[in-house]
Amino acid sequence: MKNFADRLIGEINRKKSVAVVGLDPRIESIPEHITKEAKDKFGETFQAIGYSFFEFNKRIIDKVFPHVAVIKPQMAFYEAYGPEGITAFKKTVAYGKKKGLLVIEDAKRNDIGSTAKAYSNGHLGNVEVFSKKENSFDVDAITVNAYLGTDGVSPFVNACQEFGKGMFVLVKTSNKSSGDLQDVKLADGRTVFELMASFVNQWGQEQIGSNGYSSVGAVVGATYPEQAKVLRTLMQKSFFLVPGYGAQGGSAKDTLNCFNDDGLGAIVNSSRGIIFAYKKPEFQCSETEFEQASEKAIIKMNQEINKALKEQNKIPW
Amino acid sequence: MKNFADRLIGEINRKKSVAVVGLDPRIESIPEHITKEAKDKFGETFQAIGYSFFEFNKRIIDKVFPHVAVIKPQMAFYEAYGPEGITAFKKTVAYGKKKGLLVIEDAKRNDIGSTAKAYSNGHLGNVEVFSKKENSFDVDAITVNAYLGTDGVSPFVNACQEFGKGMFVLVKTSNKSSGDLQDVKLADGRTVFELMASFVNQWGQEQIGSNGYSSVGAVVGATYPEQAKVLRTLMQKSFFLVPGYGAQGGSAKDTLNCFNDDGLGAIVNSSRGIIFAYKKPEFQCSETEFEQASEKAIIKMNQEINKALKEQNKIPW
Repeated sequence: MKNFADRLIGEINRKKSVAVVGLDPRIESIPEHITKEAKDKFGETFQAIGYSFFEFNKRIIDKVFPHVAVIKPQMAFYEAYGPEGITAFKKTVAYGKKKGLLVIEDAKRNDIGSTAKAYSNGHLGNVEVFSKKENSFDVDAITVNAYLGTDGVSPFVNACQEFGKGMFVLVKTSNKSSGDLQDVKLADGRTVFELMASFVNQWGQEQIGSNGYSSVGAVVGATYPEQAKVLRTLMQKSFFLVPGYGAQGGSAKDTLNCFNDDGLGAIVNSSRGIIFAYKKPEFQCSETEFEQASEKAIIKMNQEINKALKEQNKIPW
Repeated sequence: MKNFADRLIGEINRKKSVAVVGLDPRIESIPEHITKEAKDKFGETFQAIGYSFFEFNKRIIDKVFPHVAVIKPQMAFYEAYGPEGITAFKKTVAYGKKKGLLVIEDAKRNDIGSTAKAYSNGHLGNVEVFSKKENSFDVDAITVNAYLGTDGVSPFVNACQEFGKGMFVLVKTSNKSSGDLQDVKLADGRTVFELMASFVNQWGQEQIGSNGYSSVGAVVGATYPEQAKVLRTLMQKSFFLVPGYGAQGGSAKDTLNCFNDDGLGAIVNSSRGIIFAYKKPEFQCSETEFEQASEKAIIKMNQEINKALKEQNKIPW
């Protein structure tokens, strides 16, 4: 199995993009021509929600796939609608992969070892369906919360090894309260997030690909550029999945500390800013042209980040 | 809405049981007469897995419901099989509630505020299905991982308030590696798990019911009785959800430190030890009598814990 970090770098170079499109559908923001179609077919049901989510995602993927390497559906928004939401998630993953995109599932899963194995089998690996082995979700990578320590993380690391998959461990998250626990000082002088960074190095050391990067990455918010600078030196071989760009307030410049000097080591997510770009007057698209707005928004995001990287001589291609 | 902690105490007193039956189905341990029926109906498919899980759970619930107040399905085992697994989960929750049981979903969900809201809406509250509001899972309580801090936890706390639901925050988990992060000493002399305990107090202070207990509880492993003793003094108003009993090595005596002097404040989970009890010769049940074995096992567990509580004068009824 080809190492995930190598696959990721290959696609970043091919698309000349370090952007990630976050597919976080919210029913109240999905254009009416889609929801009308859904309601006409299925009534006001969970099925109609699932239909709306997948149709919306599909049309965005059709427009953005030439411009990005990675999509990141956020599981919460699908799971909130039960089995029908999960079906839309599964179809989105399959469609994105068919279009050649890498799919990172933002699920922040975690549990004790034997249970974490069920999560890693389901999301990254495969499950036993009686005498057969089947894939349930088969995403390329998943986000993981490591509050439970090494044995809760190992099943995911093993799946990275066995199936060429990746994972991103929450280190310093983008939200306002992330410091409540993550910034707390330890007796040894480090912060909790710095300790977590040292675990990420340890968990990822056997997963390093031919480009020198590990398939065990870290989530580091664009909203905390100073902490990102520290973390970049602490986890030199890890890819950072960087949320917080755009709607959450992070700028292209704010993401720069997440990159290494080779212009690699980070991928930057924007969700609302891309998928609901039709709401912004600057893109001059009506609601029925939402996918064109998303295309314009991702092109603009690529330009902004690539320009900022170039100014620091960090562009990798 | 009636406070969750009050509802929990009411059911504990009515059933005279502080036990929780963990419904963690594993296809390889489900009796053959069920899986055969499933394969005859649906072939070797995800649907057959879902059918097996629900049939298995249903027959166990039918036998154990007079003896316990709470069941705790572990989401990982269902989710691993995608939408069909989630359907079995949803049906299990509905069936348990129909039988008068409280359902704690072990999902360890977590995210930034706006996304955590999607989780809390889906699992505890309700979601917008166009012009209607619908319940997706509607469990009574959920486990939550608080690595992201207050804003990631608030949506769950708000759902406790609004819908009379409960939550259990991971504080000191039962697994071997839980100390990697949770036992680390902070600059102020406390451990990470002690800091987390102080957050739990803070998050739960507005959710205290008429019995003096909060609907914001904590997960504290039976495998760490010394830490549980400390945590009992630090979180006096919180219910502890105690995993680690039975198959994970914790005894009835090991759980005692999780209880307050009133005999309340803790519920103790056993999963494999109850649902796969048919495998133990002591219960003298064949595979086709698995549900009778589960009933014998839960009666035995109640007796063991109640005896241990009684010896410390901690019995609440």
